[in-house]
Amino acid sequence: MSGLFISFEGNDGAGKSTQVEKLALHMRKKGFNVCTLRDPGGTEISEKIRRIILDNANYKMNHMTEALLYASSRCQLVHEKIMPALRAGQVVICDRFVDSSLVYQGIARGLGIETIKQINSFATGGLEPDITFFLHLDPAAGMKRKRVQGELDRMENEKNSFHNKVNQGFEEIMELYPMRIVRLEANEPVGRIAAQIAYCIDTYINERGL
Amino acid sequence: MSGLFISFEGNDGAGKSTQVEKLALHMRKKGFNVCTLRDPGGTEISEKIRRIILDNANYKMNHMTEALLYASSRCQLVHEKIMPALRAGQVVICDRFVDSSLVYQGIARGLGIETIKQINSFATGGLEPDITFFLHLDPAAGMKRKRVQGELDRMENEKNSFHNKVNQGFEEIMELYPMRIVRLEANEPVGRIAAQIAYCIDTYINERGL
Repeated sequence: MSGLFISFEGNDGAGKSTQVEKLALHMRKKGFNVCTLRDPGGTEISEKIRRIILDNANYKMNHMTEALLYASSRCQLVHEKIMPALRAGQVVICDRFVDSSLVYQGIARGLGIETIKQINSFATGGLEPDITFFLHLDPAAGMKRKRVQGELDRMENEKNSFHNKVNQGFEEIMELYPMRIVRLEANEPVGRIAAQIAYCIDTYINERGL
Repeated sequence: MSGLFISFEGNDGAGKSTQVEKLALHMRKKGFNVCTLRDPGGTEISEKIRRIILDNANYKMNHMTEALLYASSRCQLVHEKIMPALRAGQVVICDRFVDSSLVYQGIARGLGIETIKQINSFATGGLEPDITFFLHLDPAAGMKRKRVQGELDRMENEKNSFHNKVNQGFEEIMELYPMRIVRLEANEPVGRIAAQIAYCIDTYINERGL
């Protein structure tokens, strides 16, 4: 696999999609072929699955159903988009990936990290990002940002206690993958965060001789 | 668990839904509270997942995505409908269940029976039917019946070689669960098949003292 797989993680409202775009611009300027994606979503089929997951009408959704739907959306994304792009030597930047399921379904929903790892290993075939940026933000601040942006989806509409568990969960996952996950403070100015990310990636690329 | 869980399996066009209705009538006449369901489907969320699975527009669907979607639909069905009905002492009659995934995704798609068993154990928590009726029909005859009924869905539109593998697959699964699965010839008259099924169930109920 000759490409580079970068993911962004963090609470809702942490500014992931903004930083995905900023990093994509940075990488394109450096001459890389860049593919930006979001998970759940990113393919026609995965976007249909995303709509089921996030629709407030589906409030009766069982936690394990939710975990399996995230995995199915991710599976399609990996096989239809991520793997072919990496094989073609592209830089793939993804807004969320398996870490989100470990945190949201494994920890916050209480299904267990091992269970979610197993389910997702079927979906991804073991594919992991080369580097992951975790944008840390106080969950209350994140939800405040989201409320300003518009109507909340089924996950965003969860109680504060859920978003606090998610926040704690990301700290746990960081400890599981200390070499892969880079933690950044999301309440710093957007440009400063972008510069930190760009510096990290440039260093990583130089070290790997990409 | 005080209820009774019955599933029907077989190639498309084998007459499963007809026999589900006939058995439901038989059981209601005997005074049982009966719940008939279909898998995939059977709940609002599961029906939405069913539409994604069967939509011909989703021809790019990866086999593992398909397996995970079936499992997610089934998970919701088990937790929202089947388990509560069984706990309430009802008779649940389901058009397809895990056996279909073992055959279609495990054998015909080639993902492996063990893989599909594991994925579905997350979805069902290990729940198995008490008794399963496998309606055996030559796959070509089944597809002929389906074509008469109307437009074919994404699974029905598979090649003949796929439907032949499915047919073979059900024979394999029968050998895995010889005590649970009852094989019936689907090309016999509808009434005769229904009588055989009713006899089997009546015997089963008498033996269990239900």
